[in-house]
Amino acid sequence: MNYGIMGYVLGYVCYFEAAFLMLPFFVSLIYREYAVGAAYIGVAVLCALIGFIFTFKPPKDRRMYTKEGLVTVSLSWILLSSLGALPFRISGEIPHYVDALFETVSGFTTTGSSILTDVEVMSHAGLFWRSFTHWIGGMGVLVFILAILPSKGGAFMNLMKAESPGPSVSKFVPRLRDTAIFLYGIYMGMTVIQIIFLLLGGMPLFDTITITMGTAGTGGFAIRNTGIADYTTYQQAVITVFMILFGVNFNTWFLVVRRKPKQAFKSEEVLTYFAIIAISILVITFNILPMFPNLFQAFHHAAFQVASIITTTGFSTRDFNMWPPLSKTILMILVFFGACAGSTGGGIKVSRVVIMVKGIGKEIRMLLHPRSVHKVRMDGRPIEHEVVRSVNVYLAVYVLIFVGSLLVVTLDEKDLVTNFTAVAVTLNNIGPGLEVVGPSGNFSSFSNLSKLVLCLDMLAGRLELFPMLMLFVPSVWRGRRPGKKRHKEA
Amino acid sequence: MNYGIMGYVLGYVCYFEAAFLMLPFFVSLIYREYAVGAAYIGVAVLCALIGFIFTFKPPKDRRMYTKEGLVTVSLSWILLSSLGALPFRISGEIPHYVDALFETVSGFTTTGSSILTDVEVMSHAGLFWRSFTHWIGGMGVLVFILAILPSKGGAFMNLMKAESPGPSVSKFVPRLRDTAIFLYGIYMGMTVIQIIFLLLGGMPLFDTITITMGTAGTGGFAIRNTGIADYTTYQQAVITVFMILFGVNFNTWFLVVRRKPKQAFKSEEVLTYFAIIAISILVITFNILPMFPNLFQAFHHAAFQVASIITTTGFSTRDFNMWPPLSKTILMILVFFGACAGSTGGGIKVSRVVIMVKGIGKEIRMLLHPRSVHKVRMDGRPIEHEVVRSVNVYLAVYVLIFVGSLLVVTLDEKDLVTNFTAVAVTLNNIGPGLEVVGPSGNFSSFSNLSKLVLCLDMLAGRLELFPMLMLFVPSVWRGRRPGKKRHKEA
Repeated sequence: MNYGIMGYVLGYVCYFEAAFLMLPFFVSLIYREYAVGAAYIGVAVLCALIGFIFTFKPPKDRRMYTKEGLVTVSLSWILLSSLGALPFRISGEIPHYVDALFETVSGFTTTGSSILTDVEVMSHAGLFWRSFTHWIGGMGVLVFILAILPSKGGAFMNLMKAESPGPSVSKFVPRLRDTAIFLYGIYMGMTVIQIIFLLLGGMPLFDTITITMGTAGTGGFAIRNTGIADYTTYQQAVITVFMILFGVNFNTWFLVVRRKPKQAFKSEEVLTYFAIIAISILVITFNILPMFPNLFQAFHHAAFQVASIITTTGFSTRDFNMWPPLSKTILMILVFFGACAGSTGGGIKVSRVVIMVKGIGKEIRMLLHPRSVHKVRMDGRPIEHEVVRSVNVYLAVYVLIFVGSLLVVTLDEKDLVTNFTAVAVTLNNIGPGLEVVGPSGNFSSFSNLSKLVLCLDMLAGRLELFPMLMLFVPSVWRGRRPGKKRHKEA
Repeated sequence: MNYGIMGYVLGYVCYFEAAFLMLPFFVSLIYREYAVGAAYIGVAVLCALIGFIFTFKPPKDRRMYTKEGLVTVSLSWILLSSLGALPFRISGEIPHYVDALFETVSGFTTTGSSILTDVEVMSHAGLFWRSFTHWIGGMGVLVFILAILPSKGGAFMNLMKAESPGPSVSKFVPRLRDTAIFLYGIYMGMTVIQIIFLLLGGMPLFDTITITMGTAGTGGFAIRNTGIADYTTYQQAVITVFMILFGVNFNTWFLVVRRKPKQAFKSEEVLTYFAIIAISILVITFNILPMFPNLFQAFHHAAFQVASIITTTGFSTRDFNMWPPLSKTILMILVFFGACAGSTGGGIKVSRVVIMVKGIGKEIRMLLHPRSVHKVRMDGRPIEHEVVRSVNVYLAVYVLIFVGSLLVVTLDEKDLVTNFTAVAVTLNNIGPGLEVVGPSGNFSSFSNLSKLVLCLDMLAGRLELFPMLMLFVPSVWRGRRPGKKRHKEA
């Protein structure tokens, strides 16, 4: 392990965390929440200090292999969350550190599960920070650093792949840094457009900014105890549309920006994503129709909830815990699907589901015609065996982590649906589950052990399992430094 | 498709069904249940007649390819169940045909899920037939035919692979027919030994035979409304031990019979199977300790339930619905594990779980050292990529069937735990689930549509997904006859 370069990268992560923490500090100044603001500026200084120590001596060997890359990404996110949780604890807004950590991990991973029973007593600075973690976590902190840093970025190159969601990262442009800039450019642009649409609907500015950051990152933290329920139908509809848009592969938006709309919407993944959304909305609309005054209302709430779940945002307008079993089951299945790869959404990702289903088709054809050659194709191009295999292994790892977490959480003696959905929504970065952790409940009653396991699940879900898994592989830590080895050979 | 040979095989299946139906007919004579007996002899004659028609003209082309093999196995099991359900309906013991079909499919597939609210009103002939379907279904009907028929067996050779559970069939001896004879020999021997042990414990003969057939096939139909709860601790302990033994890969018993015990218990699958059982019993014993008068009682019931679930038998002594969440969750996870490949048990199979976990290890090693060659090894030998891939695809198909079935069953508006466990226990051939379908409940309240879907799940689970899946692939039915094609080429 090249610990030198790893520490160096982590140092820069601390610098950026310091910069991020200045934002809620400014918010605290605007709303005159000086006591809370002090916590943010204090932790910002601490982060800058740690960053200074870690980057004091730049490493000679700047090479970063897959192993270092994966471990560094995991450690970056753990560090971001551990430090980012401090202001909640120091300001006293969240009295227990494990709770503050849960809330922060939930923020950065864009999960949106909360331990807060009353969000309306929180300061503006605290609410802003919660929502901001969604925004920056959605597109990725390391991608952000890569987009900003002009020359130091070299070491971050290898990290982007680990942080970006989906089975494969498409490079839009030859240089990786330009890709990062493009991604954040489009992301920022869409965020601004949503803010404008919401302001046009008469939503207060603070609500607009926080809700939009929660939508953009497909996070789901709201700033009212009723979630999104109290906003107007127009405002909810805007949020619905933007949740769906942020769940689309950003490759598509890149092509749209480049004025290639035909090519943009040819992607099998994006088409499947829209098809799943349309069918789910249709079925749920008619299933919940008796609970609503008219068809439009039923459609509106069905659309909001489907968009919220499939993109793994987790906003809620209605307590869908009360909905009929069919609707609940469809939503439960969408939990696992997730959004498109290369979007800010979580879950298993539509492209993995598509590849999995096509892999089954291939297996059947191989059973029928054992001697012919079969290839899984997507968007007209054949998919490498490696990708199909890794998608299948992904599912296996997913099941393994799910089962392991479920066993630990079960020790808290809650009902089966609560346990099952608690693990499902954190591992898929959704937010609310059913029963105790339903839209009108929260995660505060879990034990510290369960909360920490669910934190690991959220991180595993956001980073797509393998980076987090690496932390638990002993040989990763035992390994020699590849850099040193090379020097000796030379 | 070579429909000629398919019809011929199905004809023989009907002949054997006729022979099987004679057994409950003899039972009815012993207990003077003449009215019920008439139904059995009547259907036996019908089966013989259908068999005669189907085998009247032997096909010229006896070649059977994978496609024909898979479809024929599926159709055989559907035919066996459809005809086997008739006596229940004709005798009036089960008034609705769909219910009778559910009960018979549940029998042949060794699931043990029941729609009966009161089994004690059933005739002896009916109870015997229910339990006999477990026995013959456990080891396989086509394997039985292969073991019995001396010369006609040729066509059945290709079918055995499709009917035997597990990722790969080991041929013990060069000739496949000898393997079938060996399998049934060991199976019959173990059945007789269990009967003797139960008789020594003072169990009535009729109970002994039916319960043993349910244990051997890992089925789970009991003949009392209280399941196995009213039997003595000794009798329950005997059943516990034999459930575990019947869940072991029969390859192991073959080696034991051949006096190679060292080799027999070296199998990683069998060792893992015993390890999972031991750990589960230990944890559950201490978890349920407060509910029992002493440690032995807790251990006894934990052992019984773990053995019953992991082998997918589904006998119950206690309503484990009342057990603490941890125990329920462990049992729920064991539901999916299942017994060893090449045993009479259902589920995903321990060997698949082992291969899956090793596949994950390989993926991690490949991430760390992309340029080295990695192979998954089991029992010291490398496993072909093909096997690893098909295990992963198996999991994907499994999830797909699970989700599809869950959606249909959900239409019945029952609670989520009932729906989830109903699909889980039928697809894994267990028997009882939780809540409505718990150990003290049954499946009678489901709609006909749900019952039929659950029947398909039971068959899919018993035949390991792919044979049943073939029935729904249009190209399977469209295909040309490979035999005819060859003739033209010649």
